[in-house]
This record gives sequence, structure tokens and C-alpha cells, in this order.
Amino acid sequence: MNVTIGSKTQPYRTVAFNDRRNEVELIEQRLLPHQFKIVRTATFRATAQAITDMVVRGAGAIGATAAFGFAQGLRAFRGRDLGKFEAHLETVFQVLKNARPTAVDPVNAMTQIRANLRAGAPVFDQQEQALRLAHAFAEEDVRHCAELGAIGEKLIRPGCRVLTHCNAGWLAFVDIGSATAPLYAAHRKGVSFHVFCSETRPRSQGSTLTAWELAQEGVSHEVIADNAAGHLMQRGEVDLVIVGSDRTLGRTGEVANKIGTYTRAVLAHRHKIPFYVAIPLSTLDWDLHAGLEIPIEERHESEVMEAWGINPRGQRTSVRVGNPTSHARNPGFDVTPPELITGILTPLGVFKPKELWKHRKRLGFNEPKVGSCISKNE
Amino acid sequence: MNVTIGSKTQPYRTVAFNDRRNEVELIEQRLLPHQFKIVRTATFRATAQAITDMVVRGAGAIGATAAFGFAQGLRAFRGRDLGKFEAHLETVFQVLKNARPTAVDPVNAMTQIRANLRAGAPVFDQQEQALRLAHAFAEEDVRHCAELGAIGEKLIRPGCRVLTHCNAGWLAFVDIGSATAPLYAAHRKGVSFHVFCSETRPRSQGSTLTAWELAQEGVSHEVIADNAAGHLMQRGEVDLVIVGSDRTLGRTGEVANKIGTYTRAVLAHRHKIPFYVAIPLSTLDWDLHAGLEIPIEERHESEVMEAWGINPRGQRTSVRVGNPTSHARNPGFDVTPPELITGILTPLGVFKPKELWKHRKRLGFNEPKVGSCISKNE
Repeated sequence: MNVTIGSKTQPYRTVAFNDRRNEVELIEQRLLPHQFKIVRTATFRATAQAITDMVVRGAGAIGATAAFGFAQGLRAFRGRDLGKFEAHLETVFQVLKNARPTAVDPVNAMTQIRANLRAGAPVFDQQEQALRLAHAFAEEDVRHCAELGAIGEKLIRPGCRVLTHCNAGWLAFVDIGSATAPLYAAHRKGVSFHVFCSETRPRSQGSTLTAWELAQEGVSHEVIADNAAGHLMQRGEVDLVIVGSDRTLGRTGEVANKIGTYTRAVLAHRHKIPFYVAIPLSTLDWDLHAGLEIPIEERHESEVMEAWGINPRGQRTSVRVGNPTSHARNPGFDVTPPELITGILTPLGVFKPKELWKHRKRLGFNEPKVGSCISKNE
Repeated sequence: MNVTIGSKTQPYRTVAFNDRRNEVELIEQRLLPHQFKIVRTATFRATAQAITDMVVRGAGAIGATAAFGFAQGLRAFRGRDLGKFEAHLETVFQVLKNARPTAVDPVNAMTQIRANLRAGAPVFDQQEQALRLAHAFAEEDVRHCAELGAIGEKLIRPGCRVLTHCNAGWLAFVDIGSATAPLYAAHRKGVSFHVFCSETRPRSQGSTLTAWELAQEGVSHEVIADNAAGHLMQRGEVDLVIVGSDRTLGRTGEVANKIGTYTRAVLAHRHKIPFYVAIPLSTLDWDLHAGLEIPIEERHESEVMEAWGINPRGQRTSVRVGNPTSHARNPGFDVTPPELITGILTPLGVFKPKELWKHRKRLGFNEPKVGSCISKNE
């Protein structure tokens, strides 16, 4: 997508790879929206550290980062000894896997590449294959998001007012994003519409990342406090809700996503406003039988009691907002039941949440571990 | 209520008056929860400025501040000329009224005192009357809140988990508070329960003021992001919701309150969790025929795009959180319809919201302008 710095507008991807220098190139997301910077990691260990430090975040983006980091690590191997190469590969895999232990996308990405390497082939050939497969993985991410856009843009009617939550935007993927894909596709076709970005406390990804993305693309938008969504719906100022998903249960149609998603779904349902969840196939979980089985991460209370930003002197700092002698609960995600969801937007089309299971073969359940079909149970 | 500074615990009121020094004493609310300080205003103009600057906020608290400021101003008059005294009274009234032009409580408070002054009595007598009436007004505020507590404490069962929103606590009144009154009453009887304080973005009154109050009184509590309320209800972790009200329509049972109240009511309704609104009678509006007629204040976008707190060096500062090139919508209030409200808790008992009109005589509609019956149409 486009980024404008000064008077210069240039396209960027969240994650890219420089073959010649064997470097991963990442948008430094911790500085956004206040500063735009590209970070280059020279080794697979530096790439893993960037994942750990959340230079890069978002399921698709860390998957692609791990894919490139994996290829980067294999390409750094010197020598022809296949045994040593195999041991090195295992090290690279583990280091990148442990960069964010609870995330599934890095593991899925590397597993997919590894499964397609010709074991026993000369080291140089495997290195070249890994590079090609990593690029293919990233391109697939972009293509899936583009397909989400092509399918979802029909939802964005002229004059439409769309509510989003958190950031399922291009910064969470290699490019384009999932929940934002229909918006960008419609915008490029010249459709005029308006987006409300929920702030998304405690980490404020809506007012920081999504608002920044939309501003870069010139999409009309306003930030709202999370508390304001209900009021705007009640006054008839919201026509459509689109959110992303961290995990979608293929068996039940339940959607785990950023805390506050469930609240928006309940409000949309009361006001008969269509509520769509845009997902890449990689978030489909065919194992779990109930949303209650999804472990809800309880994050550190400091996220709730503090806020991050730029002080009046232009310095990046946190401030303690809440009462210093109080504590906070901080569940990071919630689960939205299928009856509140109008449709699940996938690169293969729009599905009723309860019909995902019926279409499971098409959506990748039980398929061999190749191509675009990555399921959580691998 | 109690405030502990160091090892010393002492009772304070939000608003008090020193007769001898003719000074209003206010808790400086802009410094809370990070610093506790009493501000003393020496003139009625300084008192008006404190209302304007939001040293003191909350309907009951600014009503009592205006009442004391009115007496303070009258007592500062020197001489016996009744004509000049009447002109001075008018000036004092206007200055305090204009301190926060859209608020009704200061005007109601001063109107009530003025109506009970014996016009034509010697200046000194009127000054003494005004002082007594101001104290009576403040005591009445305290008594009404205590009555809310006595009536509402039955709702707080042992082990109960209560969700609140914003600050309808003792800092919003002279003492005790409205939504917090049942909590403090139950706590003093030794009932064990837990409170979730919604952060209440954008101004965070829940994580700052309500959390501070509950901590001072030793009530078990946790702050949550506004986004987390739905998840906690879904997981069965909330038994009761109590909020305050800025304006309650006596004709329809609709409740205008801090933005986000409506969302909590919708969520509570879905989960069959009792949702109570605690009000002093002064918030009853007998004029309006529909919640849509209530003007919803659109506040400055900086509240949404920024956060206030203490930086790591202990200095009070704001930080810009949101994208610098984006704008925000910031409605300050929303309206909750009666069908989502289990009961309206008043100092005279609990009423179904749609039955307020039936009990209007008892609740103060159309009564003469004396005693505790202050209605918005005065």
C-alpha cells in the first residue's frame, strides 16, 4: 500500500525480503503512527528478535516474516554437508518458532516451506528452494487479501459508513489486510464511503495503526472511543461492521478476535446492521468444538492502566492513567457466536458461519499440507 | 468518605465550606488519582473559576459548589443598601451560572436558595439565611445519596460482582455518590463483593476517579478496558450493573449518561444481568418527550486522540496516542431506553423506568419550588 513521506508517495509492504543482501525488511510498527521507518534484519536471529520485540505484529505479517527468516537462515549456511545443514535448519526453525511461542502462523509458514524442500538435494538447491517458497508464501498472503478485497468490495455501497475494530489491516499482513481489503478495493474503484475506527483500548490499534493506514490511502475516516459505537449505531450512523479474526472455529462458526469484537457484534445485531468477519484461510481452526475451549490470554495490567504516545515535546513515552493503587483485568480476546455474524468473508467467497463445516473440504480441512491450505492442527 | 494519606485516614467531602473564612473547600479533582489536594477559593469569582476549570465536576458537586459560592458572594457584600445588595446578588448569580453554561445543577441550586431568601429582610439576615440554605442544600445532597445507599444495598449480595461505568461516585456529589452509594453502604455492613470499573474512555473517569474512590474505601475492585465488559458478562463474571445518570426522562424512562452506558445496557440485557440506574431526584427531566430530543454534546477530539497521566518521571502530561493526521468524533453521552433498565434507584425507592411518570407527584413533578424537589423545568 502507499505511504507518503513529505511530498513523496511510495508503495510499501509490511514485510519484504532483499535477496541480494539476504535481509528481511520490516515496517517498524512500534513507532507508528508517529514515525515511519524500515528495519532491516541481517540474520535469522535478528529476524526472530524483531518478531519477539513486536517490530512486526499481525498473524499474516509474522507468518511471512518467519518464512523469510527461515529462508534467510538456511541461506546463511556455509558448506555442503547435508547432515550439518539439516541440524542448522532445525536450529533456525526452533529459534523463529520460539520468537512468539503462542503464535501459530510462524510455525505454519515454516512447516509449509520445510515440507516442500527436497530433502537430500544439494544444500545450494535447498537454499534456493527455500527462498522461492518464502516469496511464494508472502505472495500467497497478498493474493488472499486481494481476493478478500475483490469479494468484499460489493459490501461497500456509495455513502456507506463502516465500523472497524482493531487492526486487521495491511500492517497485520504482507499487504492489503483482511478487514480492510474490501475498503481499499472499493476506494480504488472510486466508491465514496466513511470509516469509523474504534480506538481499541487497551493497545489502541484502531486509533494508531488502522487510522494511519486509512490516512495514507486517503480513505475518509474518524476515530471513535470504543464507548461510542453503540451510540452511533443507535443514531443510524453505521451501515456495516467489518472485523478480522485471530481464530475462527470451522466446526461452530465462532470467531475469536480482539477484545471488544463481541460487544460490537451484539450492538450490530440489536440494530440489524450487517456484521462481517474477514479472514484468510489460515485462521480457520478445525479442531476445537466450542468457543469456550479457546484460551483467552490475560495480558499485563499495565496495558489498561497506561497509555502510549508522543508527549508535547515530541518524545515517545507512556503515561500512567489509572489509579496507582488499583489493579486491572486485561483479557486480550473475546469470542463472538455465529448467530451474531452475518457472513465470514474468505478468499473463496462469503460463508454463513454455521456453514463453514459443510464447506470444510473446499476451505482446507483435512487437505494435505500443501499450497494455501494451512490449518491449525498441523 | 475516607481518604488515606501516608498512614493517616481522614473523612473528606468533595465540597465543603469554611464559614469563618468565607471560603469554599474543594477536592482538586484534576490531580486525582495521582495527587490529593484541597483547593480553597476566597471569592465567588474564584469559586466560579474552579467550576469552569473543572477543579470540581459532577452534577451534585457543582450544584453544591454553586450554592456555597452564592452564599459566599452574598456574604462578601458590605453595607445595608437593599437595592445595591439585590444588584450584587444578581451579579453573583450570573457569574456562577456562566461558570458552566450548559449545566443545570448550579442554576437549580442557586434558584432554590434565592426563592427561600426573605426579600426585603436586612442584608445581614439575608446573608445568614443564604449561608444556612447553602449548608442545607449540601446536607440534602448527602442525605439523598445516603438514602440511595440504604435502598440500594439490598442489591449487593455476598460474593456479588458489580460492573460500574464512569464516576457517579462521591467525587461527583458532596459525599457518598449515587451509583456508588449501594456499594459503600454494603461495604460498611461487611458484605464482601467485587467491582469492575470500566475505564470510561475518553476521559477515563472509571480508571482514575472511581478506582481511586474504591481504593480509598478498601472496596475490592479491578479496572477493565471498556472493551472487556461484554467478554466478562459472556463468561458469567458480572452479576449486576449500576450506573449513574446525567438526565432521566420522567415521561419516558430514558436515561442519558456517559457515552458507553447504552452499550453496557445492551450487553446486560443480552445476558439477563440486572441493570440499575441510581439517580438523585435532581436529574429527573419532566419536560422532554423523547430521548432523541436530548442534545448530545460533541466534545473536542483531543480527548479521544490523547491520554492524560503521569509520565515515568512523575510529571503530569498528555500524550498523543492516535494517528496525528486523523480526526475523531467524540459524543459525550448516550441514551439508554427503558426496556434495557431493570430499575431506577432513587432516594424514594426503586421504580420501573416506565413508571416514573405514574409516580411523578411523589418524585417532584409540578411541585412548588421548595425542599428537595428540584425539577429541570424550573
